[in-house]
Amino acid sequence: MAYQGGPYSGNPYNPNQPGGYGGYPGAPGGYAPPSGYAPPPGAYAPQNSSVSSDVQKWFDMVDRDRSGKITAAELKLALVNGKGENFSDNACKLMISMFDHDASGTIDITEFEKLYGYINQWLAVFKTYDRDQSGHIEEQELSQAFTQMGFRFSPQFVEFLVKKCDPGNKKQISVDQFIVLCVQIQRFTEAFRARDTEQRGVITINFEDFLSVAIGCSI
Amino acid sequence: MAYQGGPYSGNPYNPNQPGGYGGYPGAPGGYAPPSGYAPPPGAYAPQNSSVSSDVQKWFDMVDRDRSGKITAAELKLALVNGKGENFSDNACKLMISMFDHDASGTIDITEFEKLYGYINQWLAVFKTYDRDQSGHIEEQELSQAFTQMGFRFSPQFVEFLVKKCDPGNKKQISVDQFIVLCVQIQRFTEAFRARDTEQRGVITINFEDFLSVAIGCSI
Repeated sequence: MAYQGGPYSGNPYNPNQPGGYGGYPGAPGGYAPPSGYAPPPGAYAPQNSSVSSDVQKWFDMVDRDRSGKITAAELKLALVNGKGENFSDNACKLMISMFDHDASGTIDITEFEKLYGYINQWLAVFKTYDRDQSGHIEEQELSQAFTQMGFRFSPQFVEFLVKKCDPGNKKQISVDQFIVLCVQIQRFTEAFRARDTEQRGVITINFEDFLSVAIGCSI
Repeated sequence: MAYQGGPYSGNPYNPNQPGGYGGYPGAPGGYAPPSGYAPPPGAYAPQNSSVSSDVQKWFDMVDRDRSGKITAAELKLALVNGKGENFSDNACKLMISMFDHDASGTIDITEFEKLYGYINQWLAVFKTYDRDQSGHIEEQELSQAFTQMGFRFSPQFVEFLVKKCDPGNKKQISVDQFIVLCVQIQRFTEAFRARDTEQRGVITINFEDFLSVAIGCSI
C-alpha cells in the first residue's frame, strides 16, 4: 500500500453533502470533484458484503500479529509516502480513528475495507497534482488542488498551510501530510458551515463554542 | 524526569500577560495563579547564564546519542507519566517545538533549560490536583484546575475535553495529556482574545481566518 499502489476512486469529499462551502466569500456553491479518474468497480461495496480478495490480501499483510485487528502502529509500518518515509503517527492515528467506531484503537477487516477505499481516494487526488510522481506536491499544486475542491484560499493562506505541514520550509507536502491537512480542513469547514446558517462566510461564535470546535476537530 | 521528579516552580501561564480572559462571560479578569508552591531559586535563570548542574545532568541523560541536541524521540524515552507510560509523541513534539526556535526539530542545552523549567511548572500544577499522586487527575479535579486558572467552563465542556484526551472514557487524564490540553487552550485563548477587542466573549470571524486559527494553533 505504498504511494504508488492501489486503485483510484472518487472524490473523498462526500459528493452527497450540500454544496456551497468552498470559495468564501460569494463563490458559487459545490465541491467540484477532481477530474481524471472514476471509482473502480466495488469501491463502494455494500456494508455487509464479503471483502474483496485485494482488501483481504492487504489486511493480512498489515495485520502483522495476526490479531484480526489493525492498530495505528501496524498501519504505519505498511504505509510509505512517496519520499520513502513511513506515514506519520498522526496520519495513521487519524485514519484509524475515522473508522474505529467502537473507539478500541483498532479496526477490523470491514472497517479496513472502508479505510482502504478512503486512502485510495486521497491517493488519487494527490496523484492528480503530483504529475512527476515525486511523492510530494508543491505549494502551487496544493493551491490548484484546493481550487478544484471548491475552496478559494488566498496565496498567503496556502503558504501558511504548507509551512505548518512542513516546518523544514521546502514548500512541498507529502501524501500523508496532504491527507491530514485535507481531513482537518474538511472537519473545520463542516463545523463552520453548521454555524454559518446564513451562508455569509462569517460566523459569530462565543469562547467556549470556539474552543469546542478548535479542540474537538483538531487531530 | 519522571512525573514524581523535578523541582516545582511558578504558574505556566505567563503572570505578566494582560488579565481578563478566563471566565467568559463577564467574569472578573486575571489568571489566578494556582496556589501551593513557589518558584525555586534559579527557575528563571537569565538567558545567557551557564546552565545549572541539574539541567546539565538531565540533558546528558536525555541526549542518548551525545549529539548535543535533543529530539522529540529522545525526550519521549526520558519522560514518563504517572501511569508508567512514556509521554505521547504529540506531547514531546509539542514541547520540542515550543523551544525549537530555528525549526530544526531539536533543541540545544540552553533551550532545554527553558523546557525543563516549563515541564516542571506544569508538573507542579498537575500535582496540586493529583493529591493522591496517582499520576492522573479526574474530571472533577480538572474542572477545579481550570477554575483556578481563571476559566469558567461548563461541566459539559470539561467532560468533552476529558473525553477528547481519553477516548477510553475512564474520565481521567495523565500529566502529558494535561500539558497538551493546557497548551492548546492557552493558544486558542490567545487567538480568541486577539480578535475579541471589546472583551465581550464573542467574536465574529470569517472562514479563512477561522481556518488559520484552528489549524495554526492546533498541535
